[in-house]
Amino acid sequence: MTAVDRIRAAQENAGSTLCVGLDPDPERLPSWPGAPGPLADRIVAFNEAIIRSTAASACAYKLNFAFYEALGPRGYETIQRTIDAIPDTHLVIADAKRGDIGNSARFYAGAIFDDLGCDAITVSPYMGADSVRPFLAYGDRLTFVLGRTSNAGAADFQELSCEGSPLYGHVAEAAERWNADLPGSCGLVVGATSADALRGVREHAPNLPFLVPGVGAQGGDPAVVMETAHRPDAPVLVNSSRSIIYASEAKDFAESAAEAAQKLAAKLTIA
Amino acid sequence: MTAVDRIRAAQENAGSTLCVGLDPDPERLPSWPGAPGPLADRIVAFNEAIIRSTAASACAYKLNFAFYEALGPRGYETIQRTIDAIPDTHLVIADAKRGDIGNSARFYAGAIFDDLGCDAITVSPYMGADSVRPFLAYGDRLTFVLGRTSNAGAADFQELSCEGSPLYGHVAEAAERWNADLPGSCGLVVGATSADALRGVREHAPNLPFLVPGVGAQGGDPAVVMETAHRPDAPVLVNSSRSIIYASEAKDFAESAAEAAQKLAAKLTIA
Repeated sequence: MTAVDRIRAAQENAGSTLCVGLDPDPERLPSWPGAPGPLADRIVAFNEAIIRSTAASACAYKLNFAFYEALGPRGYETIQRTIDAIPDTHLVIADAKRGDIGNSARFYAGAIFDDLGCDAITVSPYMGADSVRPFLAYGDRLTFVLGRTSNAGAADFQELSCEGSPLYGHVAEAAERWNADLPGSCGLVVGATSADALRGVREHAPNLPFLVPGVGAQGGDPAVVMETAHRPDAPVLVNSSRSIIYASEAKDFAESAAEAAQKLAAKLTIA
Repeated sequence: MTAVDRIRAAQENAGSTLCVGLDPDPERLPSWPGAPGPLADRIVAFNEAIIRSTAASACAYKLNFAFYEALGPRGYETIQRTIDAIPDTHLVIADAKRGDIGNSARFYAGAIFDDLGCDAITVSPYMGADSVRPFLAYGDRLTFVLGRTSNAGAADFQELSCEGSPLYGHVAEAAERWNADLPGSCGLVVGATSADALRGVREHAPNLPFLVPGVGAQGGDPAVVMETAHRPDAPVLVNSSRSIIYASEAKDFAESAAEAAQKLAAKLTIA
């Protein structure tokens, strides 16, 4: 069973393409009665509450590793405990944006796929095929290559016109080729903030699943994403982090997150 | 004092531009009498021995984070203990190749510059200026942006011709601009494996320090690197990992590393 098969099953189960981003920012963590004192423990408890309250609406969870690595010696354990709290019916995406020569990439892949058991990872394409292949080699996992990201800086290099198409188009075509070698192993990160880019990448890569950040706090339109990019055989995972997990920063954060997730999921329903 | 000032001081001290890469691969770690049993402890002891035996020849140490993250819950502590063993006269480079939206990049920067106290980091340019700026904001540290890397896959995207120059040329020019805003904050990673690329990047970025992988195991010529790219005000740091730390995989590994470092440093002398 490929990771894409698992995405489809999870989406049928949840009825939506919603992925919830677990990006615990210490400055925005709510306080609530009975919250543990040490930051790492508070984050795990926060994540557990968010997962419980959003699991019915979401098909996947994405952990941006920056927020965990910032915890220093307790970062790894906090990732592990968060992953343990995610039901087996849901996918786990390591948003780590790794990218290194093959010899090093093997070690990153082992850490994230073997040891942490994640279903998917995000990687940067800048160093080329040999930096991505060690991840693709795990045929039952999914490697989301950064295509056209959702941030303002995406325009700096990704939109440069290179030999007739934007850089992100070259990346999308390469990803499509890599996936052809190992079907189900490769996807793309494509931001919701540019409908044109979303459409362009879908043309270059008709068969790949997309991880789509940029709805919610960053302003992308979920309906446009579904219409432009979702395909039964090439599903999208639409991520929202801040607009869900910080829907309220008071003690009702879990209920507010549940509501925000439900509302967004209603715009991300699958047929 | 900028990190570039510290590089110059360290290079005068060592008499060379050599940077030693501490990339502990469990399959290549030597065994020696009295080596600790647990892998993380063995790696720290190995690194300590390598640092002691190469410090006279080298001006900097680079830790590729892949090898440490592969240690799971003990990874962070192994990085910390390795950094503790590096003398203050030498620079510490976090070869982490991070690259994420600004909000996440801030957390990576805090982890690597504030908590671990590294002098420099490697980052990927793919997500553009706003993904690099949180690192540059630490004016006394140095951010090496991936320019033209040393691996075969470098050709896949970095050499695409984009609006008149290769992609890596655009990255080099952007890095030069970013550095102009905060002098001494930005450098480039440029592999030794292509002398043409090294020359090309130096033209696009006359004022930036370069971190140069690809001599040693990957075959780049140290003399060519020094002649093509080293400038008194824009120094190179020439990294070698495997050819030094695994010069011998027997119990004489430290002596062999010392010899290999000395030999390579002799080809990397500064005037």
